[in-house]
Amino acid sequence: MQKRKEALEKYEKAKKSGEVDKDIISLLDKLNSTPIFYTTSSCSGRIVLITLPEIGDKRNAFFLGKWHHAVDSGKVWEALKKYKEDYLFMLMQSPVIHIVCKDMESANALIKISLECGFKYTSIKNIKEEGILVEILSTENLHIPLGKNGKLLVKEIDFFVEMANKMLLRSKQKLKCLEEKISYLLLFSS
Amino acid sequence: MQKRKEALEKYEKAKKSGEVDKDIISLLDKLNSTPIFYTTSSCSGRIVLITLPEIGDKRNAFFLGKWHHAVDSGKVWEALKKYKEDYLFMLMQSPVIHIVCKDMESANALIKISLECGFKYTSIKNIKEEGILVEILSTENLHIPLGKNGKLLVKEIDFFVEMANKMLLRSKQKLKCLEEKISYLLLFSS
Repeated sequence: MQKRKEALEKYEKAKKSGEVDKDIISLLDKLNSTPIFYTTSSCSGRIVLITLPEIGDKRNAFFLGKWHHAVDSGKVWEALKKYKEDYLFMLMQSPVIHIVCKDMESANALIKISLECGFKYTSIKNIKEEGILVEILSTENLHIPLGKNGKLLVKEIDFFVEMANKMLLRSKQKLKCLEEKISYLLLFSS
Repeated sequence: MQKRKEALEKYEKAKKSGEVDKDIISLLDKLNSTPIFYTTSSCSGRIVLITLPEIGDKRNAFFLGKWHHAVDSGKVWEALKKYKEDYLFMLMQSPVIHIVCKDMESANALIKISLECGFKYTSIKNIKEEGILVEILSTENLHIPLGKNGKLLVKEIDFFVEMANKMLLRSKQKLKCLEEKISYLLLFSS
């Protein structure tokens, strides 16, 4: 119960300071309104430009740009001007939500509706005393190397931005489906 | 027990017909040699060229090329000649192994060593009567759109192949770590 309390306090604080993506707030509010679930982290899906000194070295990653909505390529070109060193990647990352579920029954119900809404990479990350940690994740993703040693090696940025926007919107659509099904689930679990 | 028997028969058959990637066989043999685990599917990591009529339409995906080892860009250019329609992607996919574990204890032990070896996307896919299905998965992946409507829109194939090879080799290294730790685990579980 203590962990739940802490997680909810952290969530409310993040919401107030504008750190929670707007297009996912009503879904998170619904999840956190019930005693069977609480959320620990989330992202509503994004497009990023990221540099890494070495493959896999996420600790030293640096964001040149980060957008939680469709972006026009002009803005991406603008952010690319800041690229000076390391490897450079453009990523499109699907929405992701981490939820602690009270028991196996509530975890299974959540996994079932997530899969139905197209979050096909949903899984259980761990099972602990305080609950079962479910990760809701969709299949849309792009992971495109754009440069190394500070040198941009790829010219077709506009095509990549077009594809990233298309896949981002497709993955965000699934959040609406999830919210509807969660409402329905809560109706019957209360 | 019936499911285990069927899975092992399928595995032996696939091994005989050369369908199981060579660089993962000794690891799978070790896992299947113990009553606490059995494998249901696997891939030792690969680089592929794939076409899709629509984003997410995996059922109608078509492989223009598939390599389970580092590939030279000449071979990739050769495979690209066959591209005539739909979206085109180059993917680098990390090794993936699906393992049914007897109980939570064996699943937790397997997840622990997988994480230690760098398979950071390892998770539980489902929990059923016959056991707990664990997916061992690493973080290396590339997902690069190369064309649409049969038209190649990207020129920097050589750079992408270089990066894909680098990441494929990095992810395959982790399989050796896993095999060593599994041997050690089995020593103490027998």
